[in-house]
Amino acid sequence: MNVGLITIGNELLSGFTTDTNSAWIGQSVLEVGAEITWHVTIGDQYNHITAALDQVPEDIKVVLVTGGLGPTHDDITQKTLFKYFDVQPVFDEDYWNILNARMVKRARVMPEINKNQAIRPNKGSVIPNNSGSARGLHLNNDRMDVFAMPGVHREMKDMMSNTIIPWIHDKTKSKIYVRTLRTTGAMESVLAEKLVDVTDDTRPVTVAFLPQFTGVDIRLTCPKKNPLIEIEEKIRDRVDKYIYATGIVNLEETVGDMLVKCGYTISTAESCTGGLLGHRFTNVPGSSTYYLGGVVSYSDDMKMKTLGVKENTLQEFGAVSKQTATEMAQGVRDLFGSDLAIAVTGIAGPGGGTAEKPVGLVYITLVHNDTVWAKEFKFFTDRKLNKQLSSQVALNMVRIHLLNG
Amino acid sequence: MNVGLITIGNELLSGFTTDTNSAWIGQSVLEVGAEITWHVTIGDQYNHITAALDQVPEDIKVVLVTGGLGPTHDDITQKTLFKYFDVQPVFDEDYWNILNARMVKRARVMPEINKNQAIRPNKGSVIPNNSGSARGLHLNNDRMDVFAMPGVHREMKDMMSNTIIPWIHDKTKSKIYVRTLRTTGAMESVLAEKLVDVTDDTRPVTVAFLPQFTGVDIRLTCPKKNPLIEIEEKIRDRVDKYIYATGIVNLEETVGDMLVKCGYTISTAESCTGGLLGHRFTNVPGSSTYYLGGVVSYSDDMKMKTLGVKENTLQEFGAVSKQTATEMAQGVRDLFGSDLAIAVTGIAGPGGGTAEKPVGLVYITLVHNDTVWAKEFKFFTDRKLNKQLSSQVALNMVRIHLLNG
Repeated sequence: MNVGLITIGNELLSGFTTDTNSAWIGQSVLEVGAEITWHVTIGDQYNHITAALDQVPEDIKVVLVTGGLGPTHDDITQKTLFKYFDVQPVFDEDYWNILNARMVKRARVMPEINKNQAIRPNKGSVIPNNSGSARGLHLNNDRMDVFAMPGVHREMKDMMSNTIIPWIHDKTKSKIYVRTLRTTGAMESVLAEKLVDVTDDTRPVTVAFLPQFTGVDIRLTCPKKNPLIEIEEKIRDRVDKYIYATGIVNLEETVGDMLVKCGYTISTAESCTGGLLGHRFTNVPGSSTYYLGGVVSYSDDMKMKTLGVKENTLQEFGAVSKQTATEMAQGVRDLFGSDLAIAVTGIAGPGGGTAEKPVGLVYITLVHNDTVWAKEFKFFTDRKLNKQLSSQVALNMVRIHLLNG
Repeated sequence: MNVGLITIGNELLSGFTTDTNSAWIGQSVLEVGAEITWHVTIGDQYNHITAALDQVPEDIKVVLVTGGLGPTHDDITQKTLFKYFDVQPVFDEDYWNILNARMVKRARVMPEINKNQAIRPNKGSVIPNNSGSARGLHLNNDRMDVFAMPGVHREMKDMMSNTIIPWIHDKTKSKIYVRTLRTTGAMESVLAEKLVDVTDDTRPVTVAFLPQFTGVDIRLTCPKKNPLIEIEEKIRDRVDKYIYATGIVNLEETVGDMLVKCGYTISTAESCTGGLLGHRFTNVPGSSTYYLGGVVSYSDDMKMKTLGVKENTLQEFGAVSKQTATEMAQGVRDLFGSDLAIAVTGIAGPGGGTAEKPVGLVYITLVHNDTVWAKEFKFFTDRKLNKQLSSQVALNMVRIHLLNG
């Protein structure tokens, strides 16, 4: 089943809000065998919303709408949809009382402006919202079913999971099978070259390369299951070592699972990543069983004081060196008493580079028992990108180390 | 000037890639007085791309296209645009040699599959790419000008900044003035209630509330400058204390600027945020002058060993308590010798909560000379959200402390 998506909000077009809803919606629709095939973003204006509904491609009978259901004056989705589907607003006294009771519980008073959140249509239905006050709408005519949700991520997710996804699942006849092989450590063109004879003819499987800075996802889709498995095997034959997960799994989750299986603990010493590596480790629920903690030490002084890096090492090789990275890793392992430790030191930029040690130069050392694995990387000039890449290759070093032994 | 945006990629529709390009494009177009008014996302299919070009609203004469210019077999933007604009492909020997020379420099061989990156059109022009190998395209007919770019963020940004934005700026006659007031610490409905008489009639200024979990942006747009300044003053009269920045500035940048101005240094002690606070501090270029570093300590043992939290305190009040947060802050200040220190301890979830101390309970303490400012927060059940909110309120506590002297 093809599904359309209309996201409403001037803030999305002007870029003041990054749209993270659409990715989540795309994935969750795919999981129940349907597919977003058309997505349009428009401003909070009556005629733009109406025009978008009129433009919905013919092969789409279900349209999801996000945004513009809040209490403020610029949220006009409700009004527009009521007019488009020719339904009348009814004030829902019961729901207004529920909203007020909730606020009392939190020792707050409900602003009068929120009254429009208690409006419901006289035809169609409202979608419950367990995470907020604005309810969703399910309206339809002969042409299509429209589901409208607030733009707030948590509320949208709640309505999708509890009401809309089950409805779509119910209506979906032909399923699509999807398999995503997540890789890191090889450029898109390198993977494509290694796989050129596989991807030459993959029918009836569709193969897509989805490059990101931190790796390339290879996505396989097929209306049948077996051809998909065959193609996956062919791909794994050639590039298995780059694949760290299948499906919507992050590298930190893969590494976390491996650490749990091995029964190892880990700690981190960070200079240029500034805490990002710890942040990624601790994004995984349950990470407290293997991630003991870490030290972020920006200055030479603190590298000596908190991690025991030798003054000699800093003088002879500098703070950005293989030797310093190694002593940082050893130091944080001693401090936290972890099995493994990983340390990152580098020049994130945009300042701080020299001819000898340019911005983007990063050293990472992994220590584990007698193993000391130190690597040099040359990244780019963008600070945030360098932090992301450094944390990605650090996690990948842990993965490869655990894979090999 | 109205500008259209077409983003191409099955991976965007299926949600395997979150579209971060569009937000950046929206902002940068706005900065030169133009505006994205229509944005459609479609798959890598000839007929979808063609249909989108046919659907471009009449009031749009300039269309930006991203995605589908890479070397792999599913990248068909180039072919489709050539056909749509009736231009012929020409193999650009010179550019192919440049690409090969670049690879030699990096001691790599250029995959043959990249040959299509040296194709140029016989009419229109190519857009230089300083950050990658795929060049962009500028094609036009009587109806519109189309600029096509790769989907890779850095390459898109390069082409926009160096070629397309200057072109749009040149063509834009009527400018729009934009002002964004970024707030944190008050819900959208609370702000709206406080501003209800201001927002009642703001003509000719448009006021939009853009709620995010970490705060609400108030965006003002107007074709003239003076009415915009007047409305801003009225808004500031009522909600100034919540406004931490104007324009595209993050809370960590505001706090960083304030620390620089005061000449203070800061360190962090993190439990439930796991490094995120350090990560945000160090996202700001130049943060090494005021951010000395921090400790991430997940376990009680490490809170004692690395931060000097007393065993008594942990036994009597628990690791998630005001008292522990305060000793963590004092401990990290002593360790790093910073002027200020901020500590976060809490239960990020989804596990680890109890009836007495539920998931989402967070304590944050800021210390500075004799000041000890400890606060309790009750957030939600989502781990990543709780980490984000904790880091946001921690930064905001630093801001408010420095504001008040």
